[in-house]
Amino acid sequence: MQSTMMPIPLSLNHLLERAGQLFAGNEIVSRLPDKSLRRHTYGDFHRRARSLASALQKLGLQKGDRVATLCWNHHAHLECYFGIPAAGGVMHTLNLRLAPDEIGWIAGHANDRFLVVDDVLLPLYEKFAALHGFEEVIVVPFSGAKVPAGFTDYEALLADADPEGFEYAPHDENDPVAMCYTSGTTGRPKGVVYSHRSTVLHTLVASLSDFWGLRGTDCVLPVTPMFHANSWGMPYGAVMLGVKIVFPGPHLHPDDLLDLVTEVPPTLALGVPTIWMTLIQAYEASLADGSPNKGRWKLPAGMRSLVGGAPVPESLIRAFHKHGVWILQGWGMTETSPVCTISYPRAELEGADMDERYRRASLAGVPVPLVDLRVRGDDGEDQPWDGRAVGEIQVRGPFITGSYHAVPVEREKFTADGWLRTGDVASVDALGFVRITDRTKDLIKSGGEWISSVDLENAVMAHPAIAEAAVIAIPDEKWGERPLACVVRKKDQDVTAEQLNAHLLQRGFAKWQLPDRYEWLDAVPRTSTGKFWKLKLRERFAR
Amino acid sequence: MQSTMMPIPLSLNHLLERAGQLFAGNEIVSRLPDKSLRRHTYGDFHRRARSLASALQKLGLQKGDRVATLCWNHHAHLECYFGIPAAGGVMHTLNLRLAPDEIGWIAGHANDRFLVVDDVLLPLYEKFAALHGFEEVIVVPFSGAKVPAGFTDYEALLADADPEGFEYAPHDENDPVAMCYTSGTTGRPKGVVYSHRSTVLHTLVASLSDFWGLRGTDCVLPVTPMFHANSWGMPYGAVMLGVKIVFPGPHLHPDDLLDLVTEVPPTLALGVPTIWMTLIQAYEASLADGSPNKGRWKLPAGMRSLVGGAPVPESLIRAFHKHGVWILQGWGMTETSPVCTISYPRAELEGADMDERYRRASLAGVPVPLVDLRVRGDDGEDQPWDGRAVGEIQVRGPFITGSYHAVPVEREKFTADGWLRTGDVASVDALGFVRITDRTKDLIKSGGEWISSVDLENAVMAHPAIAEAAVIAIPDEKWGERPLACVVRKKDQDVTAEQLNAHLLQRGFAKWQLPDRYEWLDAVPRTSTGKFWKLKLRERFAR
Repeated sequence: MQSTMMPIPLSLNHLLERAGQLFAGNEIVSRLPDKSLRRHTYGDFHRRARSLASALQKLGLQKGDRVATLCWNHHAHLECYFGIPAAGGVMHTLNLRLAPDEIGWIAGHANDRFLVVDDVLLPLYEKFAALHGFEEVIVVPFSGAKVPAGFTDYEALLADADPEGFEYAPHDENDPVAMCYTSGTTGRPKGVVYSHRSTVLHTLVASLSDFWGLRGTDCVLPVTPMFHANSWGMPYGAVMLGVKIVFPGPHLHPDDLLDLVTEVPPTLALGVPTIWMTLIQAYEASLADGSPNKGRWKLPAGMRSLVGGAPVPESLIRAFHKHGVWILQGWGMTETSPVCTISYPRAELEGADMDERYRRASLAGVPVPLVDLRVRGDDGEDQPWDGRAVGEIQVRGPFITGSYHAVPVEREKFTADGWLRTGDVASVDALGFVRITDRTKDLIKSGGEWISSVDLENAVMAHPAIAEAAVIAIPDEKWGERPLACVVRKKDQDVTAEQLNAHLLQRGFAKWQLPDRYEWLDAVPRTSTGKFWKLKLRERFAR
Repeated sequence: MQSTMMPIPLSLNHLLERAGQLFAGNEIVSRLPDKSLRRHTYGDFHRRARSLASALQKLGLQKGDRVATLCWNHHAHLECYFGIPAAGGVMHTLNLRLAPDEIGWIAGHANDRFLVVDDVLLPLYEKFAALHGFEEVIVVPFSGAKVPAGFTDYEALLADADPEGFEYAPHDENDPVAMCYTSGTTGRPKGVVYSHRSTVLHTLVASLSDFWGLRGTDCVLPVTPMFHANSWGMPYGAVMLGVKIVFPGPHLHPDDLLDLVTEVPPTLALGVPTIWMTLIQAYEASLADGSPNKGRWKLPAGMRSLVGGAPVPESLIRAFHKHGVWILQGWGMTETSPVCTISYPRAELEGADMDERYRRASLAGVPVPLVDLRVRGDDGEDQPWDGRAVGEIQVRGPFITGSYHAVPVEREKFTADGWLRTGDVASVDALGFVRITDRTKDLIKSGGEWISSVDLENAVMAHPAIAEAAVIAIPDEKWGERPLACVVRKKDQDVTAEQLNAHLLQRGFAKWQLPDRYEWLDAVPRTSTGKFWKLKLRERFAR
């Protein structure tokens, strides 16, 4: 027997039309380079995204052609999210934090045909322009200045287009809509290609009440760059439900972000832990008597915050909650769209005390629907969900990549039975809370025993004098590897290695697990997506 | 270029495994025929649904075979929701409110192979047993009595099964999982067949924060029968998120429901308006001094309620809100899985006064994601969304039926371009709120002008002395048709036709729109799904 349901494909175009029809009056706010705010409505967005699609087709865009973006978070980037797929193209977000050579290599590997670039990022573009020839370079006059000769003006292109006459490119739900290259800490970056189907499914799952809890009455601040796993997919969710968006533009300094949330208070903000750390430090410093910023900022009461991209220390969750902001931690990767787990307050925690709630919130979270998750031990067996046994996280699902663009399927990235090997090492407890112990490559093996660099970092960062800490393995003749801690002290705070070790012993670490060395830094170096850059630390210290 | 996403099918089996793995400790409570409560866990549910699947396969169930259910709302019915599809079968919910002949005809038309039936419903089964021969009749010993000879004992079947060794039937996401016949007010009932895909998509969409807002911390009371469009899909959502469920069993009398919510307070309850009307009347009567039920019941503070299946009068929404319960109205049909629109508090209503909020809540609501909705005028043109222009609602989407089981596609049910013609007449306002004016067949055409029976009913029910009102068209020589109002007065309340007409004039009705006649009834007859049975009223009064 057959189902009688209509064979209607999942489609981003449906979400775009829905936004234009139902949410025409809702706001999309973008912060411009001069820090002023530009306000669009969803009605504008709908018309402009269709105009972009129409213009791209007139420029000769063919089904499946890649259109790269090199942009900050703002309204025009959102228009690319929907306008490029509407025309049948594939939006390829370039990571503006990468070295120019690497950006050029990635654009070449993806064979990008057109580029949409912010005018303020043209100097970066010039640095890799020789490495890949785009057919057309479309410049967003983001700063308000005139677009330089030789480039196509994004606004002029839209003004000439025909949004009413535009017709969506016919498509199947498995057709590609966007691609994103992994940060590639080992080997060359690799391209993940999302489809209409995977994007709609991920949006529906992540938006559910227990996870993002996204509502039409929300106001969302995506600090996570739109080139970082599509700002974790939040722009799609916002458009689906007509959620007000506040885009920070290029201004990601803590002072700027605090100014922005004070002026346009979001109900939901998302970003990586390192940015949130500097933000809470700046905010708390502003509360001190005599601070030049005294009274300047207000953290929105009851704001939720999604933090991911790297493990979130419990100390950070506690610090934000002191000011009424609850952090929901998520875990995932470019390969997984990205949301795989979210640490939400489960029914079992309703009677729990705050210590237990903070402890759970500092875990990676519980697998979301449509994601199968297992933890495989060194012996290739599934580990029990007992909160102790560790192994590699492997995942499978309709919004998880099963291969990479234009490279042979790598045996070490996928299992024989089709699961993605994430490279993250974790245990899972009986309630399904995943606890990331380490990246496979960050684990420290000392005298045959594993030491978790993440556990050490979190414990060091729980010390009141410490702002940031990253722990790496350094080679050791006797033990194989030993931990080294790179730490940043808070302003005007002092602490010694002996005091930190005493602090760690008190928190239950064994003597052999303590760092052999502490390095005192002014800042921990960051990767292009804002994570601690351990590779750089290893190059510097692991002699 | 190709997407790199894994080709993993959507599947109810994933939701079942997820529930067993993540929510094993969460509760499923069922009220038994003797009114005691039986408590299972999701761990039990997972094991028992797999046992059922394994047993069905041993009985010879083949892919696509129909297994009918004739059951109240309880744990074993939920096991059928997942266990039958797990085995590759199609669950066919039989409506126990229908005439036995009709049930028998439907079972025959669907060619049901097996039947799962509550022991307390065996007398009903016996009445249609001669009309369709089931290969195996499996009896749920719901009352606790011994299963009569000649039938298969559901519990014995499960006890003999092998839940660990069971393997899911291989399937595609478009394979069928469940079927439901429409109530068939015109012509024979028609079968709608849901798939893994449509069910998972509908579950994700309806569960979103703006709509059901379903969370793992919820406790849901599905009063809506599990044979009524699958209890609107709520059982699937509950299992996806591990939500505690309280099943009312056969006890749907207002006193029984009030006892139940007092003993196990839900956060979310769903049912049709007629049941909710009698419930609030019983509750309010119990508050009066001297009531024999004084102090017996407590409506859970902050409870949400989903009401649909028929238009929800504003007076009902106000009455519940007086006691802290907010009603979310939804609209849909068996053909649409069923949720198409939900009247949720949009961002635009945040500053609105309560009158405006009640007014919006009394509308059918805003289309949910994945549902395309249009209103077609008599001229075949799309009507503008101006809150005035009316036409037939037509819908399209991946969880909407495009045909019926084993009947030729009917031209009058689907448009040439593939939309479902719902038969409901409505206008849509600029914010996308659908206002149902009538069923096509319930509209009253008087002197060439349309009168909305729904508007009249709601206005009559807003009178403080009125408990229920149903308005029908009666033939009239001069005007074609004229409205007749069938009304039920509240206990110990009196009101005359003149007083009601004055009340209607005061609310803005024109003189020619007033009912020509009032009929004073003790109760408005109900259809099998609890809606006002206008067909019966027309037969009785439209001479």
